[in-house]
Amino acid sequence: MIICTLCRRREAFFFRAYSGERLCRRCFCLSIERKVKTAISKYGMFEPDDRIAVAVSGGKDSLSLLHILSKIEKSFPKATLTAVIVDEGIKGYRDEAMKIAKKNCEKSDVGHIIVSFKELYGYALDEIAEMTEDTKLTPCSYCGVLRRRAINTAAKLAGASKVATAHNLDDETQTALLNIIHGDPIRILRVKPMLDPIQPGLVQRVKPLCEVPEREVALYAYVKKIAFQILPCPYSGSALRNDVRGILNRLEEKHPGMKYTIHRSMEKIRSLLEQSKLKTALSDCEKCGEPTVGKICQTCQILEALKRGRT
Amino acid sequence: MIICTLCRRREAFFFRAYSGERLCRRCFCLSIERKVKTAISKYGMFEPDDRIAVAVSGGKDSLSLLHILSKIEKSFPKATLTAVIVDEGIKGYRDEAMKIAKKNCEKSDVGHIIVSFKELYGYALDEIAEMTEDTKLTPCSYCGVLRRRAINTAAKLAGASKVATAHNLDDETQTALLNIIHGDPIRILRVKPMLDPIQPGLVQRVKPLCEVPEREVALYAYVKKIAFQILPCPYSGSALRNDVRGILNRLEEKHPGMKYTIHRSMEKIRSLLEQSKLKTALSDCEKCGEPTVGKICQTCQILEALKRGRT
Repeated sequence: MIICTLCRRREAFFFRAYSGERLCRRCFCLSIERKVKTAISKYGMFEPDDRIAVAVSGGKDSLSLLHILSKIEKSFPKATLTAVIVDEGIKGYRDEAMKIAKKNCEKSDVGHIIVSFKELYGYALDEIAEMTEDTKLTPCSYCGVLRRRAINTAAKLAGASKVATAHNLDDETQTALLNIIHGDPIRILRVKPMLDPIQPGLVQRVKPLCEVPEREVALYAYVKKIAFQILPCPYSGSALRNDVRGILNRLEEKHPGMKYTIHRSMEKIRSLLEQSKLKTALSDCEKCGEPTVGKICQTCQILEALKRGRT
Repeated sequence: MIICTLCRRREAFFFRAYSGERLCRRCFCLSIERKVKTAISKYGMFEPDDRIAVAVSGGKDSLSLLHILSKIEKSFPKATLTAVIVDEGIKGYRDEAMKIAKKNCEKSDVGHIIVSFKELYGYALDEIAEMTEDTKLTPCSYCGVLRRRAINTAAKLAGASKVATAHNLDDETQTALLNIIHGDPIRILRVKPMLDPIQPGLVQRVKPLCEVPEREVALYAYVKKIAFQILPCPYSGSALRNDVRGILNRLEEKHPGMKYTIHRSMEKIRSLLEQSKLKTALSDCEKCGEPTVGKICQTCQILEALKRGRT
């Protein structure tokens, strides 16, 4: 029997190549929760009296995050936690995920708010996918923008002072590399673990899982017996992101710890870029009044294009 | 017959996926020379009266660079060109490459200077490889530092005001990604196409091939019938760099133009980092007096370690 490096009592079931640790189930789960707590305190993500909204999709990441945050919240009596669930309107996929999400909320005794694309924008994602079938853009490119806005709207409805999303270490390093590969490295400033606080109209976003590798989040959900949706979204993701995911996984396999190193590199670049005063001032969208970098926000641009039938 | 996109007369022999051009041999070679001229003027690499040293190894990159620079130099009567050749002391490899290098210099009517590791440092690379066999460090890690210094020494001997090295687009993007992967993104500042001018003791380094993809340099050498050494160095390169090379080639294959996009991303990051006043001041090495970031330069550190037999 190989024993756990940490407790030196129980049987190890997981080898963490980048640290050399062999962990038992209990120590593994504690280590994940510790990684989340460390990120929260390192980036100063929460105040003791925050009203926190958690964006919950029904997948392994968001349900693990809900589970961990509801545990942590118990030590902060002045803080509150609400799940926000976005119904994009994807038949045979989201309905199932929403059921699972709601069940998990009940189990963790966390209230929830549901907003839907249909009621917010007039179209379900399935309808948008049909309307834009002949264009080069994938449903994902619309969904990304609309879901981000929907989460913000739901968080405001919940009276939240912070909104936590379940982006993990893999998501963060993939996005950073994609920004470089797309020739848009300034965006590195925008994919940080905690958005700048004073953005009127935007609930401050935080990413407590940003230092947990994706496969460890999955393993946590599995060990904790968290029921989550396994089906992938029927609208395939970006081909380039899938390539980058593969690249990072192969690199990590050969050189354990690489994802953390890239994450730290991005932190360094980000902190230097911030010194160079690149912060973008937001203004109010001329159509909907929501915060935007330009004159008309991306959400309104998409909705206008859908209305005109020119996408 | 598929005709050349540019001259619309001759037969195309090369498809440039990232631009969509199909080029004949002549237009292809002219386009490579144009890429070099564009990089030279974009980064302001040369003055009309520069005394230029070209670091020539005998491989396709440095001999193509020599060929192109000797062509360009003809239009600048006040400029001079000298090849600097470093003999690292690698039996069965460098001897051959040096012969080829010297022949090319004669053909291009360019004088040359040879410096060797043995005479500069007391050891040939083969000896260093033997002395350090039992250590984790590869001969390449010594060679990199010692060769850079040797090129600078040779350039000073040649009375050069600039030293041109043959780093191509692939080398540059590989190095940039390696810096990020190594968690040392600040080094992006140091791998730029043209080093800062005022570095006392250092001949200013420029990289005129920095915007030419590696396979196009190879094709240029082939079309121009430039004789170059094909043998790879017997000391294998870094495993991680080889991984990154493979990754970038596969990405470029699927998404043509990606190497240029990454190159531009690095330019943007670099220009922002430069605004944040990160420039490192160099001081004189306490042992040899050559410029260094710390107290003792890397060259002296290596030589000290070799002397002590503790590497």
